[in-house]
Amino acid sequence: MTSEIHCDSLWHGADIVTMRDGKYHTLSDGAIAVRAGKIVWVGEYAALPAGLMADETVKFDGGIITPGFVDCHTHLVFGGNRSGEFEQRLNGASYAEIAAQGGGIISTVKATRDADEEALFEQALFRLRPLLAEGVTCVEIKSGYGLTPESELKMLRVARRLGDMLPVEVKTTCLAAHALPPEYANRADDYIDLVCNTIIPQASAAGLADAVDAFCEHLAFSPAQVERVFAAAEAAGLPVKLHAEQLSALGGSELAAHHHALSADHLEYATEQDARAMGDAGTVAVLLPGAYYLLRETQCPPVDLFRKHRVAMAIASDANPGTSPALSLRLMINMACTLFRLTPEEALAGVTVHAAKALGLQDSHGTLESGKVADFVHWPLSRPAELAYWLGGQLPCTVIFRGEVRQ
Amino acid sequence: MTSEIHCDSLWHGADIVTMRDGKYHTLSDGAIAVRAGKIVWVGEYAALPAGLMADETVKFDGGIITPGFVDCHTHLVFGGNRSGEFEQRLNGASYAEIAAQGGGIISTVKATRDADEEALFEQALFRLRPLLAEGVTCVEIKSGYGLTPESELKMLRVARRLGDMLPVEVKTTCLAAHALPPEYANRADDYIDLVCNTIIPQASAAGLADAVDAFCEHLAFSPAQVERVFAAAEAAGLPVKLHAEQLSALGGSELAAHHHALSADHLEYATEQDARAMGDAGTVAVLLPGAYYLLRETQCPPVDLFRKHRVAMAIASDANPGTSPALSLRLMINMACTLFRLTPEEALAGVTVHAAKALGLQDSHGTLESGKVADFVHWPLSRPAELAYWLGGQLPCTVIFRGEVRQ
Ligand SMILES: [Zn+2]
Ligand SMILES: [Zn+2]
Repeated sequence: MTSEIHCDSLWHGADIVTMRDGKYHTLSDGAIAVRAGKIVWVGEYAALPAGLMADETVKFDGGIITPGFVDCHTHLVFGGNRSGEFEQRLNGASYAEIAAQGGGIISTVKATRDADEEALFEQALFRLRPLLAEGVTCVEIKSGYGLTPESELKMLRVARRLGDMLPVEVKTTCLAAHALPPEYANRADDYIDLVCNTIIPQASAAGLADAVDAFCEHLAFSPAQVERVFAAAEAAGLPVKLHAEQLSALGGSELAAHHHALSADHLEYATEQDARAMGDAGTVAVLLPGAYYLLRETQCPPVDLFRKHRVAMAIASDANPGTSPALSLRLMINMACTLFRLTPEEALAGVTVHAAKALGLQDSHGTLESGKVADFVHWPLSRPAELAYWLGGQLPCTVIFRGEVRQ
Repeated sequence: MTSEIHCDSLWHGADIVTMRDGKYHTLSDGAIAVRAGKIVWVGEYAALPAGLMADETVKFDGGIITPGFVDCHTHLVFGGNRSGEFEQRLNGASYAEIAAQGGGIISTVKATRDADEEALFEQALFRLRPLLAEGVTCVEIKSGYGLTPESELKMLRVARRLGDMLPVEVKTTCLAAHALPPEYANRADDYIDLVCNTIIPQASAAGLADAVDAFCEHLAFSPAQVERVFAAAEAAGLPVKLHAEQLSALGGSELAAHHHALSADHLEYATEQDARAMGDAGTVAVLLPGAYYLLRETQCPPVDLFRKHRVAMAIASDANPGTSPALSLRLMINMACTLFRLTPEEALAGVTVHAAKALGLQDSHGTLESGKVADFVHWPLSRPAELAYWLGGQLPCTVIFRGEVRQ
C-alpha cells in the first residue's frame, strides 16, 4: 500500500535544470509537484511516487525548465531618466559640461526627490515589466537617489509596493550611502551621521529595508565611513552588502567579508586578498557586466580568483539610470559569458542559486528542490546554454510564480 | 471651398520622428494619414488639411512615432544552432578542437542541408518573432548555409515564405559565396563557377533573390572571385552587396563601390580609400556591432571616415548562428552607440532610412513622408534617444504595418 501525497499541481514534459549546488543537474523528462506555492517533490517523471495526486496537471511539449531568475542588484526606482545626457555625451559633451548643467547622478536625485510615490511607481513598473517578461521572479531594489530620510523611505515604500502589487518577490535594500547629497558638500561625515542615526534606524523600524548597502569608492564613501554604516546596520539587525572595487582597489570587499556581507558587488579591481576573504566569509561576488560594458571598462573582475577561492558568483542587471539602464537579465547572462568569460552554467547559477544567496534567500529560492518556492520558468529551448547564447531579444517562456502561471 | 482628401486612417497624439534626410526632424503633436497602406499626408496635427477625412482615427496618449525598423543584414534562416559550441568554447575548447568535431559553419551547413523547408521555417520564425516584437517591419534574409543549388534555393524559398506568411516585408539575398563547401575543398574557383553559372541564374530565374552578396575575406573568397560573382549578378540583373573588411583590409569595399553595390557590410578594417569610393558610389556602410561584440574585436569601423566622406551608415543584427545570434535590433542601436560611438540619431537613421537604402528601398521605406509605405511604430517614450539608451529588454510598442496595427 502506497501512502498518498496530495498536491495542487504537477508540471512535467520538459527537462528540469535544477541548478542544485550551482550546477545544471538536469532531470530528463522531469516533474515538479507543488503544494501551497512550494515544491513538494521534484524528480524524473518516471520516478514519480505512485501515491502522488494532483488537482491539476500541466504537461509541456518538451523544452527546459529553470528556476525563476533572481535579479539581485537593481536601482529600479528612480525619477526621470538620463537618455538626454547619454545623447549629449555621444554628441561630444564632456562629463564636466554635463555636470555643470546639473547632470549626472544629482539630476536623478533631484527628479527622485521631486516625484511622488505614484509617479515613481509607474516609472519603475515600466522598467520592471521587461525583466518579468523574461523570467525574473525575484528582484532586489535599492534606495539611494533620495538621500534624505523622507525620500529614501519613499523609494523603499515604492519598492515594497511593487512587490505587493505584482507577482514578483521584492527584496529592498537601503542604500542611503550611495552618493553625497549636494547640501552636504564637503561634509561627508555629517551625512554619514544622518544615514547611521536617522535613515537606517527609520527604514528598519518601518520594516522597509531587508538589507543595507553602501558605495565604497573615491567618488563616494571611504572604508572608514562604510564601516560606520555597517555598524548602524548591525545595530538595526540588518545584513549588509557593498558596492566595492568598481573603479579602484580600496579593500571594500575584504571589509564587507569581515562584516559577513551577503555580497560585494562590481569587483573589477578586487585582489586575491579580497577573494580569499569573501570565500572564507561566504560573501557572494555580484558581477555587473552592464555597467562594465556601458562604461567601456577594460579590467574584468578576477573570475579565476573567485573560482580558486570558491566565491559564489552572481550576475545582476544593476538597472540604473546612469551606468546601466539595463532591462534584461538574460542579456547580462550573455555579457557575463562574452565579456567576463563565465561559462553558461556559471552564468545561469549567477542569476539563480548564487543570486538567491546574495539576498540571503538560499534556503527558499534559486534551485528547484523540494521545500523551495515554486518559482520556475519553462523555455522552448533544447539546452540551458541557449539562455546565454542568444543575444538580446525576448525568448518565449511561461513563468510560474508560487505555483501559478504568471500572466 | 476646400478639396476633400479621403483616407483610411489617421494617427495622431504623439510626436513624429520622421527621419527625413537621416535626421530626427520631429513633428510635435504630429499626424499621419494613410490610404491603401501608404502615407498620404504627414505633418503637425494643427496643420491638418481641412478637407482630410478618415474612416478611422487613432489618437495616442503622447509618446513618439518612428518609422518601422529595417534590419538590412540577417542570416535568419539556418538549421540547428551553435549554443553547444558556444558553451564548449567558454569551457576552454579551442576553435581547432571544435572544428575537428565538425563544428563551426560547416555544422550549420550540414544542419541546413538536412532540414526540410518546414523545419527551417519554424526555426526561423522563432528568431524572427523577437525582431518583429520590437518594431522591425522590413528584414533582409540571406542564403549561404546551403552551398548547393538545391539547398540555397530552399533557404531563399523559406525566406520568401516568411514574408508571405507574416506581416513583415522580406528582401532576400543570395549569398551562395558565403563559405567554401567541404566537397569543394581546395577548389574554390570551381565552386565559384557553380555559384556564377548555376546558383545565381537559378535563384534569379525563380524570382527568389532580390540581391547577391559574397564574403570577401582570407578565410572565404578573394576579390578576384568576388568580382566574378558580381559579374554573374549583373548578368542576372541583380544588385550586389558585400561582406568586406571584417577581419582584414582586402579592398573589398572599394571593389563593391565600383560595382555600385547597395552596401558593404562589417568594415572594421575599411580604409579612407574605401570610404571615399563608397561615398562617391552611394554605397551604404552596414555596421554589425553584434559580431564585433561577440568576437571581442578591438578595431572599430572607421566611423569618422564614413562621416567625412558622407557614407550613409546602417546598423543591422547580422543574426546568424556563429558570430551574432542576435535577436534584437534595438540592442544593436545601443551597441552602435556604446561600442562604435554613433550618436543616437545616427543609430536610429541606421535602422530606418539608411537601412532602407542598403536594400534599395529608399523610395518606399525608412522615413515617414508622403508617398512612403505606412510602416511605423508608436513608443511610450519621451524622446528618440531612449531607443538607444535602454539596454536590452523589450520596450512596449504598437507596430503599424502597411497602415494596420500588427498583432
Ligand atoms: Zn549598483
Ligand atoms: Zn553577415
